[in-house]
Parts: sequence; C-alpha cells; structure tokens
Amino acid sequence: MVRTQPSPTPNLVSIKDVEALLETFFDGSIDSAHRMSPHYATLWREMKRITFAGGKRLRPRMVLLTYQAFGGDDAAAVVPVAAAQEVLHASLLMHDDIIDRDFIRYGTPNVMGGYQKIYQPLVKDAGERTHYAESAALLGGDLLISAAYQLIGQSSLPPEKVALVYQQLGETIFQVAGGELLDTESALRPVGAIPAELIAIHKTASYTFVAPLLIGATLAGITAEQKVFLRIYAENLGVAFQLQDDLLGVFGDDKQTGKSTTGDLREGKRTYMVEQFYALASDAQKATFEKSFGNDHLTDVQAEELRALLIEAGAKVRTEEIIATYEQRARKALDELLLFGGAHQQFTDLIDKAIRRTK
Amino acid sequence: MVRTQPSPTPNLVSIKDVEALLETFFDGSIDSAHRMSPHYATLWREMKRITFAGGKRLRPRMVLLTYQAFGGDDAAAVVPVAAAQEVLHASLLMHDDIIDRDFIRYGTPNVMGGYQKIYQPLVKDAGERTHYAESAALLGGDLLISAAYQLIGQSSLPPEKVALVYQQLGETIFQVAGGELLDTESALRPVGAIPAELIAIHKTASYTFVAPLLIGATLAGITAEQKVFLRIYAENLGVAFQLQDDLLGVFGDDKQTGKSTTGDLREGKRTYMVEQFYALASDAQKATFEKSFGNDHLTDVQAEELRALLIEAGAKVRTEEIIATYEQRARKALDELLLFGGAHQQFTDLIDKAIRRTK
Repeated sequence: MVRTQPSPTPNLVSIKDVEALLETFFDGSIDSAHRMSPHYATLWREMKRITFAGGKRLRPRMVLLTYQAFGGDDAAAVVPVAAAQEVLHASLLMHDDIIDRDFIRYGTPNVMGGYQKIYQPLVKDAGERTHYAESAALLGGDLLISAAYQLIGQSSLPPEKVALVYQQLGETIFQVAGGELLDTESALRPVGAIPAELIAIHKTASYTFVAPLLIGATLAGITAEQKVFLRIYAENLGVAFQLQDDLLGVFGDDKQTGKSTTGDLREGKRTYMVEQFYALASDAQKATFEKSFGNDHLTDVQAEELRALLIEAGAKVRTEEIIATYEQRARKALDELLLFGGAHQQFTDLIDKAIRRTK
Repeated sequence: MVRTQPSPTPNLVSIKDVEALLETFFDGSIDSAHRMSPHYATLWREMKRITFAGGKRLRPRMVLLTYQAFGGDDAAAVVPVAAAQEVLHASLLMHDDIIDRDFIRYGTPNVMGGYQKIYQPLVKDAGERTHYAESAALLGGDLLISAAYQLIGQSSLPPEKVALVYQQLGETIFQVAGGELLDTESALRPVGAIPAELIAIHKTASYTFVAPLLIGATLAGITAEQKVFLRIYAENLGVAFQLQDDLLGVFGDDKQTGKSTTGDLREGKRTYMVEQFYALASDAQKATFEKSFGNDHLTDVQAEELRALLIEAGAKVRTEEIIATYEQRARKALDELLLFGGAHQQFTDLIDKAIRRTK
C-alpha cells in the first residue's frame, strides 16, 4: 500500500498569506476608488506604494506567532486580523509624518511626499502644495483606520471573537493616539514633565507589541493568568525597544541603522536618555549641552560633543541600565508563561531582535 | 379590577437617548484619558465641548426615523448605532476643518481653535502653534473614527446585524473620504473637471442621508426592493441638500443662515452654480466674473456684481431647476416606498427641511 504524503494543512499560514491579503485589499480598494474617480484611485495607489515600499511586517508576524504558539487551530481565520495590524501601522505612520512634517519613509517619498509631486503642475506655491499634499495623506490615514476595522470584519472567526478583536483595536487606537499627543506635547513642556517611559508605553509598546501579541494569544484561547504575564512581557519589551531605538538614534552606527545619528540631536528629541542627562548633569554640563542640542544647524563636531556629555554625565549608562531592567522583566514574565520548546525560543528571539540589535 | 396604565415601552427612544449616550461616551473617554495623562484628558474635553456646542443631530435622527418607520422593534439597541453617526460626523468636521484651515465651528473655536489657545503660553511662533493645534485635532478626528466603530460594538443587536452596520460604516467612510479628496482637488483643476454633483453624492449625500437612512431601515428589516427606492430617495435628497446649501451660501439671508454670503465667493468655491455659469456665460461675463471671484479681499459691491452675473447668465435658475429635479426624484422614490400615515409625512417633512429651507 502506498503511504500518501501528509497534505499541507490548510491552517498553516505564514506572513506571505498576510502579504497576499494586503495586496488583494489594496487592489480591491484601488478598483472601487476608480469607479468613483481616477483621482481617488491615485490616493489608494499611493497608499499601496508606500505600504509595499518597506516595513518588516513585525506586527502581523507577532499575531501569527502568539496564535500558533498558544495552540490556535484556525490560523487562516487570523490572517485578516494580522493584516489589520499592518494597515493600522500604515495609517499611524501616515498621520505621524504629517505631525512630524516628514516627507520620506523607507527611503522613498511617503504619501505626502508623493502628492507633492502629483500636485507639482497644479499648485505653484510650495506652501500651498504641501498643504494639499498633507490633506491627501490625512484622508489616506483616515481610510486606513477604517480599513483596519473592515479587515477584521472579513475574518471567519466566530462573532464573539471578532467582537474581542474590535474592542482590542479600539483600545489600541485610544492608547496610541494619546501616546502620540503626549509625544508631541513633550517638546513644548519642561524636560521630564511628560516622562519618556510613559510615551513609550502608550505610543510604541501598545500597538507594536501589546496589541499584536495579545490579540493572537486571546484568539488562541490563552488563560487569564497567561494573559497577565504576556502583557507584562509585551509592555516591557515594547518600552525597551523604544529606549533602544532612541539610544541607536544617537549612538548607533548610521551605516547599520540606515538613519542619521545626528537627527535626534538636531531635533532636540526628548528621549529617556535626555531626561536622565538633565537629572544627572552639572549646571555647567547642562549649559554646554543647551548650546547645541536642538540646533537646526548642528555640526558633526557639536554632535560629538553632545554624545560626550551624555556619556560623561552618566545618561548613556543609565539608559542602558534601564533597558536591561525592562529586558529582565520581559524575560521573567516569559518564564512565568511556561512556554516550552519552539515557542519559548521564538519569544526569546523576539527579545534579542528588539533589544540586542544594532540596527 | 384596576386596569393598569400601559407602561411606557422601553423600546420607545428619542434623540435624547442618543444625546445621553454621547455624553456618557465622552465622559467615559475623558476619564480613561485622564488615567493616562491630564493632557490627554484635555483633548477629549475639547472634543466633547465642540460636539455639544452645536449640531442638529440630523444623522442620528434619521437612523431612528427609518428604524421606527419600517417597524423596528428594538429601538434601544439602535441608539448606539445612531450615536455612531454623530461621532463620525464630528470626526469628519474635525479633519475637514484642518483641510479648510477653519478654526471656528458653531460660532465657537473648534478643536484646532481651542488648542491654539491652550498652546498660546507654550509656543511663541504663531505658525508653529497652528501646526501643534492641527496635530491635536488630527489625533482627535482619528479617535472619533475609531469611536464610531466602538459605539456600534456596544449595541445589543444580534452579531449579524452589527456586522452589517460595520460594513455600512466602512463603505460610508470610503465614500466620504473620496468625496472630500475630490472636493479638495476640484479647486486645483479646471471648472467642471470634477463635477460638483459627483462631489455632492460622495461627500455629502453618502454620510448625511444615505448611510443613516439605510442603516435604520436595514436594521428594521426593510425589503431589498424598498432598499432600492430608499437609496434613490436618500441620494437625491442629499444632492439637493448640498446644492441648496451652495445656493444659500451666495443668495441666502446671512441673518437666517448664520454664515456670510460672501465667504464662498471670496474662496472661489466651485459649486454646481459656478459650473453652470461657466457653461452658460459669455466670454465677457466670464472675464468680469474672474476679476473678483476667489478674491481674498472681495468687497460687498463686487460680491453683488458676482451675484448679478450668476443671475444674468442663468446659472442661478439652472441651479434651482436641478434642485427641483432632484427633489422630484426623491418624491417619486418616496411614493414607490409605499409608506403611509405618519411615516410618509415624516419623509416628506425631511424633503421640505432639506430643500425648502432658508437657513
């Protein structure tokens, strides 16, 4: 008798399924928009272009990771939920770029940058053109917030589970918009008035780690106790990730990170490290620091001086220490999760990727 | 035996129930935001302030109207759905005001205007202050798009009906964002390149009439045939409403409308009437028109000249005629709906309110 090969299970999904769904989603939207007007289709094409120009699909990957690690058995139904995390991410980037007045993303023009070109022959005044481009990106972000909900609605999960995911998405948007507001306002208030850790929890950890990891796990039927530890793991990992990002933004190797290590110093970004500098430095050090921190025309020599001050005052070490503390807490929570074998390894790898990175 | 009075049915709801739910929703959000930061609570307080500063609650009223007219028997479950229409409206206004650079709504500062005051002591430069204020309003609108979905999720309707409402909301946002983009871009393109009627269908009729009327009726269990006629009624009513709005924006009585009748002429707003002017006017009339149409410093005398030109060229009459055509179509569809008694009257009243209005 011939043994048949085990057929590939239809429930084994990968990030490629998420990619395929995203492609279908954008193509369908471009078609629908085109039925209204070719100008509307242009906006959707711009949104598709930037979504596929980069991004590591970190958030959908985490949804699939926890769903499968905690024994979920209908992964195909979770693909739209995973895709929704990426669409939310794209939406947040679009609006974040408006707030930060950034026109480049993944080394290419973002939606706003794309529209500056599209409107070039139509609007002479550069300021006006930027405003129109910003308006298009604003509408784009709005559409993708709604699209995140719509993608979830496409899932074949039972209604009570879909309702859970909707709720979690609402909670996430509530958190991340608040975090974004605090981040924006922190530049207007005294250093430390809005702690960088608070911003990191709400603006980064909430939607980059907590939501994707918890959604996957919740759908797989994680216990209430596991949920507590998974949330601790995700939140601490998320804050460590953001603080590491800030550290690399000043002390990283720009060849590896792909972004300038003077940008944050030139902007005067209020990171945890800068907060620590203000807590630890002498008045003389602070006076020297303030001479060039946040200076639009910062030179490389001045940037090197700022880095030296951050080291001398102990702000760099203090930041590395707190990152280590967050990492420890994440590892401890992971132990409490009692995940064995492959699953445990994947969660440990995630810590290494998020924190022990150089880019 | 004592006959008891029939107890008031718990399913008889009114717009007051919607108001109460909106109040509960905003207060709950303010509380949750406050747990994150008092600065975040400020944003939610600003959003509540402007939502309760005005607005006729036209959209929730229409949801309740059709639900009850088509025999829906669980009106209490529809209240969150009705409230969601108002929250979507508030969100769209917030982002529309960013696009139009308007700082006043209902005769009082909108969220952007409110934040200009809040940031006054924190940001010296007026342009920078406006950008920060705009960022807060941008996040506010994002939060309310998500909140519209969340409110629907609060309904006690069966899951398959909730799913229908989610779908309709997604379709509406897709329509209205497209309409808004076309409206914005119409100013950049030749008159008539993006027809005003197309914009009116997508930007106004879609979410002001079609969505609220269809959602209420769909939840009440309207037949597929009735749905066709209700959609025709709603869409024609919506376009007539917008064209009437544009007419009042130029020829209305500013004491009754509460808004300047030179604003649209000063802005150079591309209405249906202006399109008709360009189709009908002589070259000489067009040349005179273009001397002051869209002029930032338009005088009252010039505005009066523009009005005279719109009348002379026949653009005003042509607009009144097309409004009458849309009205006729709405009335015809209403007849096909075969609604009798009170219900029919309410739908006729809606036509009168939307079109035969002076304010």
